[in-house]
Amino acid sequence: MAVNVPPLQDLLAVPGVSLGTAAAAIKTRDRDDIAVVLLHPQTVAAGVFTRSSFRAAPVTIAHRRLSAGGVRALVINSGNANAATGDPGLADAVAVCDAAAAALDVPGDCVLPFSTGVIGERLPVARMLPAVESACASLSPDGWEAAARAIMTTDTAPKAVSRRIRVAGKEVVITGMAKGAGMIKPDMATMLGFICCDAAVAPGCLPGMVKEVADRSFNRITVDGDTSTNDAFVVCATGCAENAAVNDAGSEGYAELRDGLAAVATELAQSIVRDGEGATRFVTVRVSGGQSAAECLRVAYTVAESPLVKTAVFAGDPNWGRFCMAIGRAGIADLDTSRVAVHLDDVAIALGGLMAPHYEEAAAAEVMARPEFEVHIDLGRGGAEETVWTTDLSYEYVRINAEYRT
Amino acid sequence: MAVNVPPLQDLLAVPGVSLGTAAAAIKTRDRDDIAVVLLHPQTVAAGVFTRSSFRAAPVTIAHRRLSAGGVRALVINSGNANAATGDPGLADAVAVCDAAAAALDVPGDCVLPFSTGVIGERLPVARMLPAVESACASLSPDGWEAAARAIMTTDTAPKAVSRRIRVAGKEVVITGMAKGAGMIKPDMATMLGFICCDAAVAPGCLPGMVKEVADRSFNRITVDGDTSTNDAFVVCATGCAENAAVNDAGSEGYAELRDGLAAVATELAQSIVRDGEGATRFVTVRVSGGQSAAECLRVAYTVAESPLVKTAVFAGDPNWGRFCMAIGRAGIADLDTSRVAVHLDDVAIALGGLMAPHYEEAAAAEVMARPEFEVHIDLGRGGAEETVWTTDLSYEYVRINAEYRT
Repeated sequence: MAVNVPPLQDLLAVPGVSLGTAAAAIKTRDRDDIAVVLLHPQTVAAGVFTRSSFRAAPVTIAHRRLSAGGVRALVINSGNANAATGDPGLADAVAVCDAAAAALDVPGDCVLPFSTGVIGERLPVARMLPAVESACASLSPDGWEAAARAIMTTDTAPKAVSRRIRVAGKEVVITGMAKGAGMIKPDMATMLGFICCDAAVAPGCLPGMVKEVADRSFNRITVDGDTSTNDAFVVCATGCAENAAVNDAGSEGYAELRDGLAAVATELAQSIVRDGEGATRFVTVRVSGGQSAAECLRVAYTVAESPLVKTAVFAGDPNWGRFCMAIGRAGIADLDTSRVAVHLDDVAIALGGLMAPHYEEAAAAEVMARPEFEVHIDLGRGGAEETVWTTDLSYEYVRINAEYRT
Repeated sequence: MAVNVPPLQDLLAVPGVSLGTAAAAIKTRDRDDIAVVLLHPQTVAAGVFTRSSFRAAPVTIAHRRLSAGGVRALVINSGNANAATGDPGLADAVAVCDAAAAALDVPGDCVLPFSTGVIGERLPVARMLPAVESACASLSPDGWEAAARAIMTTDTAPKAVSRRIRVAGKEVVITGMAKGAGMIKPDMATMLGFICCDAAVAPGCLPGMVKEVADRSFNRITVDGDTSTNDAFVVCATGCAENAAVNDAGSEGYAELRDGLAAVATELAQSIVRDGEGATRFVTVRVSGGQSAAECLRVAYTVAESPLVKTAVFAGDPNWGRFCMAIGRAGIADLDTSRVAVHLDDVAIALGGLMAPHYEEAAAAEVMARPEFEVHIDLGRGGAEETVWTTDLSYEYVRINAEYRT
């Protein structure tokens, strides 16, 4: 099940970026499961990583090497997360990176590793090393689709998006790919996102921009609140567009580039929710009228992750008491419920903290029968607003997660 | 489905307490749905209430009257929560209390109202007033079982417990009842708990004791993290045992009474979890080795409420990566995962943050096939410990909550 996952469109090559894939039979034999991304020498990269205390080996290494700068290549594998593998897992990740570095003739510590798949098992390094070499031999600027397929785990469809924008008067190309079928598979190591562009950005400027982009996209999706050991989102800017480098948040082109990256990241993030295991609905939860963004997010996540709201959405049941219950337990100090309003698309279900006058259940049920709809909650106490995206909770979710390893 | 809900045992009358029930056809016609509890004039009472911003009308009134002191009676109805009913709902609750006050010849503001059932509908006051009068005419010290049945909603069994303890050398009787089938039914307005004893306690001492008792019992259970608009837990001490009054936390008998109340409250709270809708397992999540009780609770609740852990428990799948995932996302600063250990009963599944050496999945699967087992997480960084109780997440949970109103 999946809700309107957009079909793959033509993906634009990004000057300074080439991609190759190969099959290492990490978990299954019939598919490419390794992707290598080679980046132009002047590339600037930044990323955000899982906040889990249990960080996988590749996350530890990628985070450290990204901070040091000078990134030249990414090596991504599906089928095995290399998580909870201790020191041997770190050595395995380094060995895989070294193989790519040798094949690409770049320094080993300029290669970042990423893994997604089963937790607690060692990488099959012996099978992976020749496959990495083979992936490096197949590099092409047009390798995006093959790479987007190679990084899939339980995804029902590859997820990749391109945009053309203008940054400080120069045309810039952005192409990104992601994997993840909901945030619901720590065994499958969840969410990876990679976006490349050919804009020139100062190294000191990109990390803050990536954080802003993540906070509008990958940090605004939830299927069940669970978080993996391997989540990573990385942006690489090759500089090949030869725009005047974006130096800081105040400089020309900053907002354009940030918004372009955010548009691509948001579409990728939404595709992950749409492909959420067991999903039968794609739900936008928008909270306005808050005193702060933080309290809007708190309400939005409480509603989006409430099992009672999610089962009501699965049932298409406009059970307004459940929405109010979830808002009520979000822990917002001094919330005056008599100012709270809840709409499902254009149908008011609660106004002034009570059932909306003239509320007709049939109208609300009609909205909830739609594959996509918005829950809009207005707290009536300020100007802040935040939005998150989520799915319902279905029998299929329980089946997939109860039967996953059996 | 329910997991080892203890059968009702002989309930002890509490000197100074009598109970009556009657049928008001609030939601269905074939059962008592109103209970009245009359308390001795020297009774001291204290309680804790839902922290939801959306508080039901009876919660607002009961909380205010309890703070004022001088409580003489409780009126409890099932079938309708009188929640999200605005000012008319407050007036309805007062009218019901006034009927009890007239029948019992006590002041109206000495009667506390409690309601559980559907949200957003007015109480059928006209039908309830004669039923309240009839319940008052049937008062008996032996009315506990009938009252425990009258307050049920989707519970599959009544929940009531008695204990005899000694407080400062005097024998004291404690009897309590509760309703709630998991914390999963805001429409059905969730958890109500009432415990009476004949101990003498100073009015200034009881509120703190009740908070301590709740924090060991009703505040340590979770089915899905959802919280109702009507949750309430009230302790009434009639003083008829004529012990030297327990005056403060340092006085003789304080610990004995608190522990006795906590034992009754814990058994009632665990019964609610055992009766959780869709429950096939009763799981104790114990977190030790924390730097503080707060961080132990945070880990315990994150594990207990993780949909991925809960579906693995439903499947009987000893998926140790999911336990580590949940621990990892609990947000414990500077958690050294290499000191974390996880046991299922006596089977080590993770040690030093890695899969336990000599781990055998069959042994862990055998534990998870038990109807009751303990997940013990040691954080390896301090002396604090906390325990919560929860259930699994089954198809039945989704079915009940998706089909509830249809």
